[in-house]
Amino acid sequence: MDYDVFDLGDVRLQSGITLPDAKLAYKTYGRLNAGKSNAIVYPTWYSGQHYDNEWLIGEGMALDPSTYFIIIPNMLGNGLSSSPSTTPPPHDRARFPHVTMYDNVQMQHRLVTERFGVERLELVTGWSMGAGQTYQWAVSHPDMVRRILPFCGSAKTSLHNIVFLEGVKGALTADAAWDNGWYREQPGVGLRALARVYAGWGFSQQFYRERIYEREPLGYGSLEDFLVGFWEGLFIKRDADNLLAMLWTWQNADVGRTPGFDGVAEALAAIRAPAIVMPAEQDLYFPPEDSEWEVAHMPDAELRVIPGAWGHFAGGGLNPVDTKFIDDALKELLAKDV
Amino acid sequence: MDYDVFDLGDVRLQSGITLPDAKLAYKTYGRLNAGKSNAIVYPTWYSGQHYDNEWLIGEGMALDPSTYFIIIPNMLGNGLSSSPSTTPPPHDRARFPHVTMYDNVQMQHRLVTERFGVERLELVTGWSMGAGQTYQWAVSHPDMVRRILPFCGSAKTSLHNIVFLEGVKGALTADAAWDNGWYREQPGVGLRALARVYAGWGFSQQFYRERIYEREPLGYGSLEDFLVGFWEGLFIKRDADNLLAMLWTWQNADVGRTPGFDGVAEALAAIRAPAIVMPAEQDLYFPPEDSEWEVAHMPDAELRVIPGAWGHFAGGGLNPVDTKFIDDALKELLAKDV
Repeated sequence: MDYDVFDLGDVRLQSGITLPDAKLAYKTYGRLNAGKSNAIVYPTWYSGQHYDNEWLIGEGMALDPSTYFIIIPNMLGNGLSSSPSTTPPPHDRARFPHVTMYDNVQMQHRLVTERFGVERLELVTGWSMGAGQTYQWAVSHPDMVRRILPFCGSAKTSLHNIVFLEGVKGALTADAAWDNGWYREQPGVGLRALARVYAGWGFSQQFYRERIYEREPLGYGSLEDFLVGFWEGLFIKRDADNLLAMLWTWQNADVGRTPGFDGVAEALAAIRAPAIVMPAEQDLYFPPEDSEWEVAHMPDAELRVIPGAWGHFAGGGLNPVDTKFIDDALKELLAKDV
Repeated sequence: MDYDVFDLGDVRLQSGITLPDAKLAYKTYGRLNAGKSNAIVYPTWYSGQHYDNEWLIGEGMALDPSTYFIIIPNMLGNGLSSSPSTTPPPHDRARFPHVTMYDNVQMQHRLVTERFGVERLELVTGWSMGAGQTYQWAVSHPDMVRRILPFCGSAKTSLHNIVFLEGVKGALTADAAWDNGWYREQPGVGLRALARVYAGWGFSQQFYRERIYEREPLGYGSLEDFLVGFWEGLFIKRDADNLLAMLWTWQNADVGRTPGFDGVAEALAAIRAPAIVMPAEQDLYFPPEDSEWEVAHMPDAELRVIPGAWGHFAGGGLNPVDTKFIDDALKELLAKDV
């Protein structure tokens, strides 16, 4: 086991359900300094686990573990933190309670403050649903978060994004082996169908038009090779109920439902952290237009679009050009005196 | 029965399979004039049937039945022309042979020439897969087609479009009730999953962002109302094997595979008909960039993008503004002396 677990005890969720013996799996990189002033939180994305985030951490990069103490908390439902697949009855599997972005960040806040005694975060950043958690941090704890850089994500899931996810969910749950969540074995046909639905959304039309999946750094031999090797490979290793739990979190993400706020505009206006908001130019489910709206409602935010053909996966760490673009922005933001 | 059927006898398909007793269902509007010089062919789209095309026909419109003799041939696999659901054994259901765009147009050509004695077509036009058949007409019969106006479609299905359709297919076939095509009852769960996958693609991000489905002319009460009432309603009435047969036709559409041609560029260059090619600005699976490439390879084609937020369904006849835009272009093209 290459990670640690923070035991939260029984946690009352935003829904009113109590999740007993809640656990937050996390991994840290670098050392917390004496002043506890070098911590960064970098949450995970839909189905991702902490090691899937490591591409943005390294010597000479913005998230340099020789300078910063980087905490990657695993999102609830991802199979390492409390999830349908890991929680004992009666809250297991199909009965795993609905968890919000707010709930995730509340638990991460306890990890950061109770386990590490950290009261200021130099930065919160993340990709996709990790960006959603980044916004949530800035809204839930405005005095604690010094900077944010959400990339390829949103503060509130758009209606079109919800529809995209309806297709993802529909494909998985069309497999009768899913059995309303009480399967004995993973519904493999449904997981592969989900993967193929996702494939059209994750990268852009241009990405496919130019067969970028055939070139380095991906280097697949054909379209079918990419669909099986990359897409089915990504999702066939996941647990179906976990995917559905995180999908619920995603569809219902909205910083405007944070207690004390009335809607997303009001919540965004309350963010104090300077922000660089980075959508990808051709992201099909987090399009730049949505980020533009959010930036316009934040007091100190810059919109900086990641150019190119990689669509949503511009933020997935697969393409060195996009990784450098994000890393450069992180360096600039971290150098900013706030 | 509000349509006619043309019996083609046994038809040797491009695949080498013989489809016995092939049938082409069609409907005509208006009267063929004495010189047989006023015929228009207007093929159907994915899952659509002839009556679904009628919104573009009417008095005072470009396709005016008092002027033109308009033939709507039903695409093979659509449930009216030869289809998995209508063909007797042994070529029924899952064993229905693969049919290409070329095959469709060859049969339509026989209908037009053998039944009606028509040797010149004033126009071929169509939406989506109907646009694909339009391109195929112009390539297969360059001396016969005087004008074409394909809207929201392509001459060769793009790789991204193929991936989108993999998701559509994956969702439907994840339902075990499909039974590899040998179902006793329609796989309803799979058809509804297919519909939800389609929902994210058929209209644009902006369409959902602005809740255009709630306003006139659609007027649904909520997102879920639209997903069930419009999307599930569209596909739950279709036959699963028919949908899969047409999906194969779509994924494999390529005018470059027309006998005598070596690739799409060569085939497009051989088109003689003046063309107005009309992609929709925000079409997610037939993006304007693909049409632009095709227009650049055609000798006499104009690219005219349908503006607005309706995405692919700008060409579906639901929005009067888009319908007028298409109708105006049809009038202009038909008035052109060629």
